[in-house]
Amino acid sequence: MPELRWGPLRRRWVIVAPERGKRPSDFRAQSPSPTAADECPFCPGNEHLTPPEIARTPGPAGWAVRVVPNKFPALADYPELELGKKGPFRRATGLGAHEVIIDSPDHSRDLDRLPLEQVERVVDMYIARLGALRSAGRFQYVQLFKNHGKGGGASLAHPHTQIIATPVLPPEAQGRLSAARRHFAAHGRCLICQLVEEELAAGERVVEEGGHFLILSPYDARFPFELLVLPRAHSHRFVELSGEGRTSFARALQGALSRLSSLLGDVPYNFVLHTAPCGGDWPGIEDWYHWHLEIIPRLTQLAGFEWGTGMFINPMSPEAAAEHLRTAV
Amino acid sequence: MPELRWGPLRRRWVIVAPERGKRPSDFRAQSPSPTAADECPFCPGNEHLTPPEIARTPGPAGWAVRVVPNKFPALADYPELELGKKGPFRRATGLGAHEVIIDSPDHSRDLDRLPLEQVERVVDMYIARLGALRSAGRFQYVQLFKNHGKGGGASLAHPHTQIIATPVLPPEAQGRLSAARRHFAAHGRCLICQLVEEELAAGERVVEEGGHFLILSPYDARFPFELLVLPRAHSHRFVELSGEGRTSFARALQGALSRLSSLLGDVPYNFVLHTAPCGGDWPGIEDWYHWHLEIIPRLTQLAGFEWGTGMFINPMSPEAAAEHLRTAV
Repeated sequence: MPELRWGPLRRRWVIVAPERGKRPSDFRAQSPSPTAADECPFCPGNEHLTPPEIARTPGPAGWAVRVVPNKFPALADYPELELGKKGPFRRATGLGAHEVIIDSPDHSRDLDRLPLEQVERVVDMYIARLGALRSAGRFQYVQLFKNHGKGGGASLAHPHTQIIATPVLPPEAQGRLSAARRHFAAHGRCLICQLVEEELAAGERVVEEGGHFLILSPYDARFPFELLVLPRAHSHRFVELSGEGRTSFARALQGALSRLSSLLGDVPYNFVLHTAPCGGDWPGIEDWYHWHLEIIPRLTQLAGFEWGTGMFINPMSPEAAAEHLRTAV
Repeated sequence: MPELRWGPLRRRWVIVAPERGKRPSDFRAQSPSPTAADECPFCPGNEHLTPPEIARTPGPAGWAVRVVPNKFPALADYPELELGKKGPFRRATGLGAHEVIIDSPDHSRDLDRLPLEQVERVVDMYIARLGALRSAGRFQYVQLFKNHGKGGGASLAHPHTQIIATPVLPPEAQGRLSAARRHFAAHGRCLICQLVEEELAAGERVVEEGGHFLILSPYDARFPFELLVLPRAHSHRFVELSGEGRTSFARALQGALSRLSSLLGDVPYNFVLHTAPCGGDWPGIEDWYHWHLEIIPRLTQLAGFEWGTGMFINPMSPEAAAEHLRTAV
């Protein structure tokens, strides 16, 4: 069963989930090719191949969006979070949730090529599931993310999104919360509201500014063609998107992904949502936090320098990336 | 020219080095296969294909170990570190150094299969170059690392090691320094000296304990078969290894890599050295910091969850990894 572990040298929780594991010989082989449509557990007609369904949006094929538990969950439904300590080490039960949102019945079309109404249904389901996991009251954070392509870590080709709810506040969320709170304390205004303003004024990193969202290549981009999708109106929680905001976000997300695929082909990528945590005490968070989405095309390889230092080397300036992406449609 | 950039949301320096860059169409293609031996710039006879040599250890082929500047440096030899600020953003000239240590004239044998005396020569060169860059007095940190295999981020197949000297203290070094200092303040002893003791007592994560080094799979391993090489005697700086210590380290490093390749084949990996910084004021660091080396086999794919949270999911327990590696020779 999954377990959380913490060591005194790195001081970060790691999830050890050996059910997902393999024998050493399995690691030697290349990971299997994405499953063909006729045996794909996410295709219509193969619903019996997934664990019992959590939610669905009705559609002509029986469903338009479907949510199922991950068959190899990183975290699991323990009765409670038990903490342990042994010498300098800490451990905790791997309490959490791990869900898969099947984006559509279509095995081969990712969000960039689905009809906009379908992307809206997907966004509605993101909000429904994030809301449900938040209300469960058992988690500190709920991470929504997408892995696309083998290079993006997807083990199944059928387009899908994932949600992992964690019983601890992850370090990346902690870092962004601290940064935003600190900025608000020092400058009396929201960091991302200011970023939106600065980036619109500078212009050179802006990819798209229509609608309710700003798409840009960040000043401190770690990767070529990395993108940030920022809501122009202040809001600390993704789940509070209104009906109109959802349509606009679906269009922005599809627009960003379409630009990437039109410029780079079927590029492997990840996207990750950064939104307010479910747990913890964060006075005034509605004023100083501002949700956002990061899109990371997986074109470069992490290597020793990045592991050793925690710094990234980006071989493309974000200004050049934005220029290329502005002209891609 | 390379530049350092810092943004207020992530608060970490990123190196933007567009000389290393490509057009969008170059990113679409797979990276080129490792160069064949007859046109390999690191093979004997092709010395004219590298930038002017920095250092060499003499040998039968003219040299046994050779050091050259990286042809596409991540950081460069600027006259000085200029800092700039623009709104919420900071920048700095990409001051630093980026060297390549060619491990041996042999195009196809990595450290696991070279004669021990050659590994010792490589270790001697690590110490010579780290010492020289430290004495330059211009850098805050010097990161030594190795990328092996395409999956490890190596762009050339001929075995080599790299050193990048940075003008800022990298976040990973900062984190380990803080952890070690905090532990010493709280417990009055070195964190890694204590880890060595605890791991030897527990036994289950130990891979090898002979000689002056302990090889183990850490309690909070992020990756399957991740290894930590710890000097058993306290020392804050790698460059202070004595003659006998160097031989012992060469044997430990070769031993660890041999176990990995014997169990997993020619596995892509990175290794990274964590040693005391060259800059900054760290009172008492000789008492509380303890250098160490991490080896990271690249068997799993980073994906959205890791980018979003900064947490890792390890599909193999370090106890199982250690058990497999103990029996591999």
